[in-house]
Amino acid sequence: MAKLTSRAENYSQWYNELVSKADLAENSDVRGCMIIKPYGYSIWEKMQSALDKMFKDTGHSNAYFPLFIPKSYLSKEAAHVEGFAKECAVVTHYRLKAAEDGSGLIVDPDAKLEEELIIRPTSETIIWNSYKNWIQSYRDLPILLNQWANVVRWEMRTRLFLRTAEFLWQEGHTAHSTKDEAVKEAEQMLEIYSTFAEEFMAVPVLKGLKTASERFAGALETYCIEALMQDGKALQAGTSHFLGQNFAKAFDVKFATKEGTQEYVWATSWGVSTRLMGALIMAHSDDLGLVIPPKLAPIHVVIVPIYKGEEQLAQIAEYAMQLKNELQQKGLTVKFDDRDTHKPGFKFAEYEMKGVPVRVAIGPKDLANGTVEVARRDTLEKSTISGGEAVEHIYGLMDMIQKNIYAKALKHRDESSHYVDDYDEFKRIIANEGGFIYAHWDGSAETEELIKQETKATIRCILLDQKKEDGKCIRTGNPSKGRVVFAKAY
Amino acid sequence: MAKLTSRAENYSQWYNELVSKADLAENSDVRGCMIIKPYGYSIWEKMQSALDKMFKDTGHSNAYFPLFIPKSYLSKEAAHVEGFAKECAVVTHYRLKAAEDGSGLIVDPDAKLEEELIIRPTSETIIWNSYKNWIQSYRDLPILLNQWANVVRWEMRTRLFLRTAEFLWQEGHTAHSTKDEAVKEAEQMLEIYSTFAEEFMAVPVLKGLKTASERFAGALETYCIEALMQDGKALQAGTSHFLGQNFAKAFDVKFATKEGTQEYVWATSWGVSTRLMGALIMAHSDDLGLVIPPKLAPIHVVIVPIYKGEEQLAQIAEYAMQLKNELQQKGLTVKFDDRDTHKPGFKFAEYEMKGVPVRVAIGPKDLANGTVEVARRDTLEKSTISGGEAVEHIYGLMDMIQKNIYAKALKHRDESSHYVDDYDEFKRIIANEGGFIYAHWDGSAETEELIKQETKATIRCILLDQKKEDGKCIRTGNPSKGRVVFAKAY
Repeated sequence: MAKLTSRAENYSQWYNELVSKADLAENSDVRGCMIIKPYGYSIWEKMQSALDKMFKDTGHSNAYFPLFIPKSYLSKEAAHVEGFAKECAVVTHYRLKAAEDGSGLIVDPDAKLEEELIIRPTSETIIWNSYKNWIQSYRDLPILLNQWANVVRWEMRTRLFLRTAEFLWQEGHTAHSTKDEAVKEAEQMLEIYSTFAEEFMAVPVLKGLKTASERFAGALETYCIEALMQDGKALQAGTSHFLGQNFAKAFDVKFATKEGTQEYVWATSWGVSTRLMGALIMAHSDDLGLVIPPKLAPIHVVIVPIYKGEEQLAQIAEYAMQLKNELQQKGLTVKFDDRDTHKPGFKFAEYEMKGVPVRVAIGPKDLANGTVEVARRDTLEKSTISGGEAVEHIYGLMDMIQKNIYAKALKHRDESSHYVDDYDEFKRIIANEGGFIYAHWDGSAETEELIKQETKATIRCILLDQKKEDGKCIRTGNPSKGRVVFAKAY
Repeated sequence: MAKLTSRAENYSQWYNELVSKADLAENSDVRGCMIIKPYGYSIWEKMQSALDKMFKDTGHSNAYFPLFIPKSYLSKEAAHVEGFAKECAVVTHYRLKAAEDGSGLIVDPDAKLEEELIIRPTSETIIWNSYKNWIQSYRDLPILLNQWANVVRWEMRTRLFLRTAEFLWQEGHTAHSTKDEAVKEAEQMLEIYSTFAEEFMAVPVLKGLKTASERFAGALETYCIEALMQDGKALQAGTSHFLGQNFAKAFDVKFATKEGTQEYVWATSWGVSTRLMGALIMAHSDDLGLVIPPKLAPIHVVIVPIYKGEEQLAQIAEYAMQLKNELQQKGLTVKFDDRDTHKPGFKFAEYEMKGVPVRVAIGPKDLANGTVEVARRDTLEKSTISGGEAVEHIYGLMDMIQKNIYAKALKHRDESSHYVDDYDEFKRIIANEGGFIYAHWDGSAETEELIKQETKATIRCILLDQKKEDGKCIRTGNPSKGRVVFAKAY
């Protein structure tokens, strides 16, 4: 198996090669659309399963709304249409027919839709059009729904997982009788995303609010979690929007209060997508391949026999199968790779590329001594463990590896976080090492845009626990009440 | 809650009302596209979960392929394009813009795609285009993939769950080195569908082969399971296709054999969809509402308190919560409905409509006597059970109800199955009572079409365990070697 380009050499190429060689995904012939391969999809399934449980534990149910949005719906909320109209796939016809000249299939001009349909880029409009019929009184509230779905945004520059024309995601859409309840919901979902990122993905995240210019199209506030990748660039890993009454007004969704008055309904929406796969890959992996935290690993342990001849293999297999069974009883997923078509060294490299957290090798010496060789993917450390202790040791490693991966990512983020008060230093850091820069900003969209133009850095978020601190804007010198977080971002 | 139209009065209207009143799904404003509501979706999730486990237990993995299929791909397999070109949604543009006259959004003529994209009606073409790159040698085979996805077929007449323009499904796509292995795979998946239908949905099914004219577009053989609904109409509940080398030839997918020759790859595909929801609803439900087999019920047991005043409610609640906890420990999903906004009678009707398998009522008499009232949804029988025996009794009911629902459906099918040798009788039965008719057929597509024109009955399948029996075709009198199964179908 050919080695990866190193991160130091070319981070972007390293990422592309890794996604391919670890069999996670590939580009399809359809521009910007990816194929998620079985190994990549099994990680996504683990993400889905953990998130879905967290959503249900907080009272949400899943539902499913149409893929198609009538063009007129998209137009109903002014900011929303502004944000999405420029990049949407449009269905105009519903039939093909054979060309009369025999040249193949053509779109049948007689099958033109009266109103064009947009492939959903997000589902606020189609869902709020339904909520209008579902909500009459305060008794119908709250509505706490989520949808797992594919969406399409016609991005011009795409990268596997990070930015694709079609992607998979979940989108929560809730309806509330009070502003306060809707804000609490948006905050709760951000907290769930943050917990998921840190506890499952082992990726530390900052929790904050987007500035007005970075908000979701149609939101009053956008909450976000921001992670730092190894190359010093930030990645927005999830967003939760307080939509106010914007969509209720656009779709005329009112409810009768207890007091008998009519009021517009309050809304939130929130989502994470297959982009999380990109975050997971870039946060932890190294020049040998993927590093997957055990909680999301499709395979926890691989056992590789090192043998000469059938007889030795049979002995090792017996030993290995016993270990496999005991580990499975502990809830771990274990693979015993006894393929005779590949050498152990090839297999070692393959499972390093695929990020399997623990590799166990069993050879004739181990048979004789009653030991196994245990290798950790995160640290690449090897140790020889007596057979009787192997199960407990390996089981214990799962938690240790999960924590170590997180600690390593946190250390990297801490070391890449800078408090900067000088614009030249700001520019130098952004241009060279990257990372999060905590700097003062005067609060104006103009200054934000100026800094973006001059440095390519954007305001990733205003931390929810921002410290009050008087200072001067790093660009204009105008007064500021606290630092915000800048970075270059994916 | 207003009552349903009875099945006897108007079966079709009964179905539509039931889907709506049980909160399963509704029509959206987008022609032919449905909204699956949370209660309906939770049943679908249970179906997905059981099927997904069966697929994985037989070595399949999930993956994800693009929503969009380039128009030219669809054309590559002749029979396939013939089957799907007439009913597909076509994406022609990728941007909207504001109309110059201020009248709203229009499709931007400058954003026309070079090649139109079809929303997948099924994914053989896009997947085999990928398999071409994945398969070089026999070592790359078999490929055993499945995809959970939405697909679109622009049907002109739609009905919730049974026939919708967009629907949810799974589609398996496998690649094999031998014909024999592919045929076995197609048969294995039919067996899985049949097991799922009978053991989870409690719907007995016939297993058979489609005639040539009813085959999937591009298949050499289509295996199917066929269920009988209460109105005597058949419903195709799942299909598994042996595709031969058709798609391998269309996309030039060859592999190097062990012997070093180049051969085309053998294929299968197989799928079930949200149509199964329609089968589930129509197979078991009655004039009071849904009847859901316990294995697919989102809620197994609902506990309804019957009380006067807060104090009595508190006493009953304590009793109920204990019962709830004990039932949950047995793995059942239990709801305690203590809403003070609705009377017990209303709640009883509501849970009957929603098909909750067991209802427990607890009133002051039960408190005094240490009993509970247990009502079965399937038989509507009520019994008073002593509190100490309630958990075991209710837990035991789950299995009994599951089996009883199946037995009832099987009895209905048996009573509705007719061996007919006279065409007038055939026509009379099809026109009046419906059901499955076992009759001789001469094997010609012309006769099949003639019978369809004259009676609206189609050949549902040629049973896999068809008995060899010499006879005369019911329509033409030509010789036949065995009976096939006719019915009117959804």
